[in-house]
Amino acid sequence: MLNNYLNVRGYTLSLCQDLQNEDFGLQAEEFVSPVKWHLAHTTWFFETFVLVPHQKSYRLFHQDYSFLFNSYYNNVGERVPRAHRGLISRPTVKEVFAYRKYVDAAMSSLLEDGDEGELADLVTLGLHHEQQHQELLLTDLKYNLYFNPLRPSVNDIGEYPNLYEEDWIEMPSGMHKIGFQGEGFCYDNELGFHEVFLEPYAIADKLVSNADFEEFIKDGGYRNSNFWHADGWAWVLQTGREAPLYWEKNQDSYSVYTLQGTKALIPDAPVAHVSFYEAAAFAEWAGYRLPTEFEWEAAAPSFDWGSRWEWTQSAYLPYPRYQKAPGAIGEYNGKFMINQMVLRGASVATSPHHSRVSYRNFFGPEAQWQFSGIRLVKDH
Amino acid sequence: MLNNYLNVRGYTLSLCQDLQNEDFGLQAEEFVSPVKWHLAHTTWFFETFVLVPHQKSYRLFHQDYSFLFNSYYNNVGERVPRAHRGLISRPTVKEVFAYRKYVDAAMSSLLEDGDEGELADLVTLGLHHEQQHQELLLTDLKYNLYFNPLRPSVNDIGEYPNLYEEDWIEMPSGMHKIGFQGEGFCYDNELGFHEVFLEPYAIADKLVSNADFEEFIKDGGYRNSNFWHADGWAWVLQTGREAPLYWEKNQDSYSVYTLQGTKALIPDAPVAHVSFYEAAAFAEWAGYRLPTEFEWEAAAPSFDWGSRWEWTQSAYLPYPRYQKAPGAIGEYNGKFMINQMVLRGASVATSPHHSRVSYRNFFGPEAQWQFSGIRLVKDH
Amino acid sequence: MLNNYLNVRGYTLSLCQDLQNEDFGLQAEEFVSPVKWHLAHTTWFFETFVLVPHQKSYRLFHQDYSFLFNSYYNNVGERVPRAHRGLISRPTVKEVFAYRKYVDAAMSSLLEDGDEGELADLVTLGLHHEQQHQELLLTDLKYNLYFNPLRPSVNDIGEYPNLYEEDWIEMPSGMHKIGFQGEGFCYDNELGFHEVFLEPYAIADKLVSNADFEEFIKDGGYRNSNFWHADGWAWVLQTGREAPLYWEKNQDSYSVYTLQGTKALIPDAPVAHVSFYEAAAFAEWAGYRLPTEFEWEAAAPSFDWGSRWEWTQSAYLPYPRYQKAPGAIGEYNGKFMINQMVLRGASVATSPHHSRVSYRNFFGPEAQWQFSGIRLVKDH
Amino acid sequence: MLNNYLNVRGYTLSLCQDLQNEDFGLQAEEFVSPVKWHLAHTTWFFETFVLVPHQKSYRLFHQDYSFLFNSYYNNVGERVPRAHRGLISRPTVKEVFAYRKYVDAAMSSLLEDGDEGELADLVTLGLHHEQQHQELLLTDLKYNLYFNPLRPSVNDIGEYPNLYEEDWIEMPSGMHKIGFQGEGFCYDNELGFHEVFLEPYAIADKLVSNADFEEFIKDGGYRNSNFWHADGWAWVLQTGREAPLYWEKNQDSYSVYTLQGTKALIPDAPVAHVSFYEAAAFAEWAGYRLPTEFEWEAAAPSFDWGSRWEWTQSAYLPYPRYQKAPGAIGEYNGKFMINQMVLRGASVATSPHHSRVSYRNFFGPEAQWQFSGIRLVKDH
Repeated sequence: MLNNYLNVRGYTLSLCQDLQNEDFGLQAEEFVSPVKWHLAHTTWFFETFVLVPHQKSYRLFHQDYSFLFNSYYNNVGERVPRAHRGLISRPTVKEVFAYRKYVDAAMSSLLEDGDEGELADLVTLGLHHEQQHQELLLTDLKYNLYFNPLRPSVNDIGEYPNLYEEDWIEMPSGMHKIGFQGEGFCYDNELGFHEVFLEPYAIADKLVSNADFEEFIKDGGYRNSNFWHADGWAWVLQTGREAPLYWEKNQDSYSVYTLQGTKALIPDAPVAHVSFYEAAAFAEWAGYRLPTEFEWEAAAPSFDWGSRWEWTQSAYLPYPRYQKAPGAIGEYNGKFMINQMVLRGASVATSPHHSRVSYRNFFGPEAQWQFSGIRLVKDH
Repeated sequence: MLNNYLNVRGYTLSLCQDLQNEDFGLQAEEFVSPVKWHLAHTTWFFETFVLVPHQKSYRLFHQDYSFLFNSYYNNVGERVPRAHRGLISRPTVKEVFAYRKYVDAAMSSLLEDGDEGELADLVTLGLHHEQQHQELLLTDLKYNLYFNPLRPSVNDIGEYPNLYEEDWIEMPSGMHKIGFQGEGFCYDNELGFHEVFLEPYAIADKLVSNADFEEFIKDGGYRNSNFWHADGWAWVLQTGREAPLYWEKNQDSYSVYTLQGTKALIPDAPVAHVSFYEAAAFAEWAGYRLPTEFEWEAAAPSFDWGSRWEWTQSAYLPYPRYQKAPGAIGEYNGKFMINQMVLRGASVATSPHHSRVSYRNFFGPEAQWQFSGIRLVKDH
Repeated sequence: MLNNYLNVRGYTLSLCQDLQNEDFGLQAEEFVSPVKWHLAHTTWFFETFVLVPHQKSYRLFHQDYSFLFNSYYNNVGERVPRAHRGLISRPTVKEVFAYRKYVDAAMSSLLEDGDEGELADLVTLGLHHEQQHQELLLTDLKYNLYFNPLRPSVNDIGEYPNLYEEDWIEMPSGMHKIGFQGEGFCYDNELGFHEVFLEPYAIADKLVSNADFEEFIKDGGYRNSNFWHADGWAWVLQTGREAPLYWEKNQDSYSVYTLQGTKALIPDAPVAHVSFYEAAAFAEWAGYRLPTEFEWEAAAPSFDWGSRWEWTQSAYLPYPRYQKAPGAIGEYNGKFMINQMVLRGASVATSPHHSRVSYRNFFGPEAQWQFSGIRLVKDH
Repeated sequence: MLNNYLNVRGYTLSLCQDLQNEDFGLQAEEFVSPVKWHLAHTTWFFETFVLVPHQKSYRLFHQDYSFLFNSYYNNVGERVPRAHRGLISRPTVKEVFAYRKYVDAAMSSLLEDGDEGELADLVTLGLHHEQQHQELLLTDLKYNLYFNPLRPSVNDIGEYPNLYEEDWIEMPSGMHKIGFQGEGFCYDNELGFHEVFLEPYAIADKLVSNADFEEFIKDGGYRNSNFWHADGWAWVLQTGREAPLYWEKNQDSYSVYTLQGTKALIPDAPVAHVSFYEAAAFAEWAGYRLPTEFEWEAAAPSFDWGSRWEWTQSAYLPYPRYQKAPGAIGEYNGKFMINQMVLRGASVATSPHHSRVSYRNFFGPEAQWQFSGIRLVKDH
């Protein structure tokens, strides 16, 4: 457990190694957070939920940090308004690194003494929580730096994995087991292991590519309301979008902002940074549809996944017998089960070993700043 | 068919009989429409989709009306912005009544000549469309007149039906048939008849009452974030709501605006005008949950329903093999299948014979102005 | 006085004679009011400030009307929010006409008994107040009906007066008397008769024409920030304006919405419906400037005025020794002396005999819906 | 000239000496700018308007900086949207300091070669421009750090100067000379030296104190609409203000956020951080009024000023014969002459030797974040 703790915590720092001090505080919109806040908030989680209740001799690093770096845990005191996170210039980056070091030392000492039962569960939860913030740290950072006309490079995480042959995987009708079962960690939203009856369907073994999506654009996809949900069409009209986030039109081609700065679009790479509205409109235009999250989970062992979070046509709802845990930790998932769509899989920005076939990611239908892509399904 | 046509059309007019000329044009918010618009829009539907394609000799009543009274049918020309519907003082109410009479005469003549096949289907669709607008006419009117400090009376539709004994109906696990099958009319969103596997549950045979909901309020329900979805809590903070829509607090009691003006709250009547957020928070507080739309449909034959639209915990999504119909009519339902929750049943404002056990109504989770109520479910 | 009262009150009704019942309730934006509200509010003024304090036997027409038709008089009870005025369908138009008749009868009876001193002052103030609302009734109505795609005709008030020869009137430097002095009525903002020292200037004897303004447009006036105030340029970018309000571009020419519906632009007529921002930008482009209100008042006897309210470059500020009257009536003018620019003259919509050379009209720099025009000045 | 240049530029740096690197990028609202932006923008001014046109051998420090650090000079290329200034994490603080050093070296070399004529005028303008930004740097920084719940200390500039005896200075009626005349620098808005006729008045020789303003609050000043302009009252209702900016209520007293962190209110110090609306409401409550800018300028030699910018009741308008200079520099003042009120004097944050008796500062009536105070006038 201690090794695992140190690995995950160290990976967070490794994501920041090419940043300037000034980059840590950026917050371009309310829905993204500064890197500094991610660094401190994940640390606050261990301090508040592990060290304070389980380490008698522990003394808070700073009494104000609980207020400054709490997030949506309404049960744990007041919070800095989300839109103001970028305004907290002090504590400085250096002080936040010191905070991490202080908490890591206390955690190391605690974990050396043993890691049984509830303590182990809490630490595991904290590490998965930190891994989620690792991905957000990257996607938020990309979004924040995009507002700089100089379009800086962030790190060397490649956005474009290799691809496989295109084919349809046939799935017969029948009962399928859904949700997490067995050993190891999962989130509360994966529990309620249950059976679902599915009609027959076929699912693509590869993701929609940039070239595919460019065809949609050229065919007037963003100008024909018939392809869109009513809310999706309103979103197009209001935002004026004509391509995925980060795409920039040149004369006859597109370039795209990546974690290495602005680059030419790679046609064969899977499209990224599309909203659910765009994913659904593309599927409609192509004559197919998105999978349900159950269809995705049932077929996932038969295809490669992991370079893009894949939009499903399932709303984010509780599984049967879903119970929220009592107290602050329990706020975790149930409270978000409205106005969100499920994404399955993982992305190039997801931390190693963080996802699994039953993992349920979720965002509002307009979200584009994650590495989100499209897999198609057809009915029989 | 002709009889049915005349009955439905006449019922619309009967809903207006106590109105002042000045009431017909009110539009308090973008999401409600003026009575005059409902009267004209439902007429436009028959003119555009039935008379123009099927009655060669038909001449439009007025060439501008197609522009003025089109709604969300993007495929049929330009539209008046929704928020401006209340600004169309001309044509006058008298002219819109003349429009209805003119179209009714042409429809009568057409239907006397026979009503087979596609024609019958279109007329039937138009009549169900008009019945939906009958309910909206009432709920929109109630909302619009509520902004008048004089709180006028609208008509004599009683809001408060009698109630039944409270009990739980036990439902065993198993496969259940969902959706519409057989003769008669249904909407496209009810098709895709299919089977769903349900875990065991128990469902209340009566709705949550005003007295029940008052207890929730008195127990601090609107002040404790733990009962609410995150978006629901944000909605409470932003709107400042402390009770359902139309409730007004006196010293120690509540009065409520009804279609007969402001009245004292009836404790035993089923609560109305709650949003999904309020319904879900109430269920959380009470220790139960809302039904899924499948649980509701499976159990509906065992309880009385029809006085309140009942919020479910199901998002409004397509059934298996859902296909949108080609062309303008086809825009009907699929385009709304995002950001909405399903309501089942019917309400006191629903037109007679309009609903059925497979009927899927839907609104955003913040909508309060329908006669929407709460039925509880518990797991086993 | 009684004759005068009946004439002014009758003139208000004459402005409504061609309206449909449905037109009386329209309110397209918060800054315009429904005709019905103007009719009732001016009546409420006489009831509240004349009849109630001076006619012992007077009984209110309806106790709710004071609440419904109060405007900005914070000292006289609660008010309907301004944006909700269009939602008061009841009392009906017929009832408001009855209200006017009732109050007119009581006023006639009161004025027959004599009209000395404070009573005469209040009635005179009420009549000038009503005349101001007569003009607003027309300009608000024009604005409200403009949102109807049918572009209805309102009445036969011609917007385009004849014009005079163009010339510059030379004004030498020196002291000028400013403000109202002598017999007759004036508003409190005209008092504080005082002297102002002016440098020499020349003022145009005619207004800027539609043809002049079209040249400004064709020369890129709306696309060159150098002609505009910073706030004016932000207003252009935000509203997307490319011509005065009510102008609609055809191929190579403009038509314009008038009180008689949409008409071809008359090149020689004075431009109307420009904001202060547009007036100032035009003057900058033309190489001249707008007059101060003092320059205007000093030169006004030497030119014809009255077809357009003329923007000045003077902010609306108190004259020396300005005192607001105590109590509700006193709220009248002083409270608006911020964020407004002065307009001088009168317009085709101004009621007969309402304006005078010392009259100070005022609106925010973005207001376009008055018949506002441009007169130029040059320095020496 | 070179000495002066180095002094002014060095003073800017001295204002930053206690800042953390992370403080330089903060931007809490669109109307404030980051410290880093002030440092770079003032440098850009010298580079663009002095070095590029007058130093043939000069090479730009970085070609993107003109885009990044231009402000409202529409004539000089595109600009970063004002609200995004806080998002420019790169160039870093260190790079901006290097930019300053580079430009200072080039300027030193240029000025050593002589500083005659247009060059001298441009450098002088640039230095006064920098002094204006010195004050904004301080007031923006105070505002930005105020959003940090830790309420950090910034520097040791004392906010509370000593005070003088209270008395009224009598001013007789007559002609007064207004505007700048003579040697030395002034802004274009001070030119148009002219005469104004003033009625007699008396002006207070000291500013309104914190204790005075607290009396206004305790007497219900923020709850009585009669003291306020209509727009001011709307501002109170919308913002919920109950005290000047930076005041925080404890049980029975107030503390206030200063450049040294949060402190107890000093009763005898002049009130600061009031809007024009608050200043005018206070004057109305006290039975006096604010001075016009002409009354202020005429009387200024008779009293001490310089600790607070003093709101006048004069709108910011051009003096007679005001001409804007051609080209980019000329955008400077004229374009802001709308929707602003004049403030006279100087404040504790004003740079040494920057202000003078004819200096015209200006802000919108809602601005509070400057060190703005109140001086009263009474009529005779």
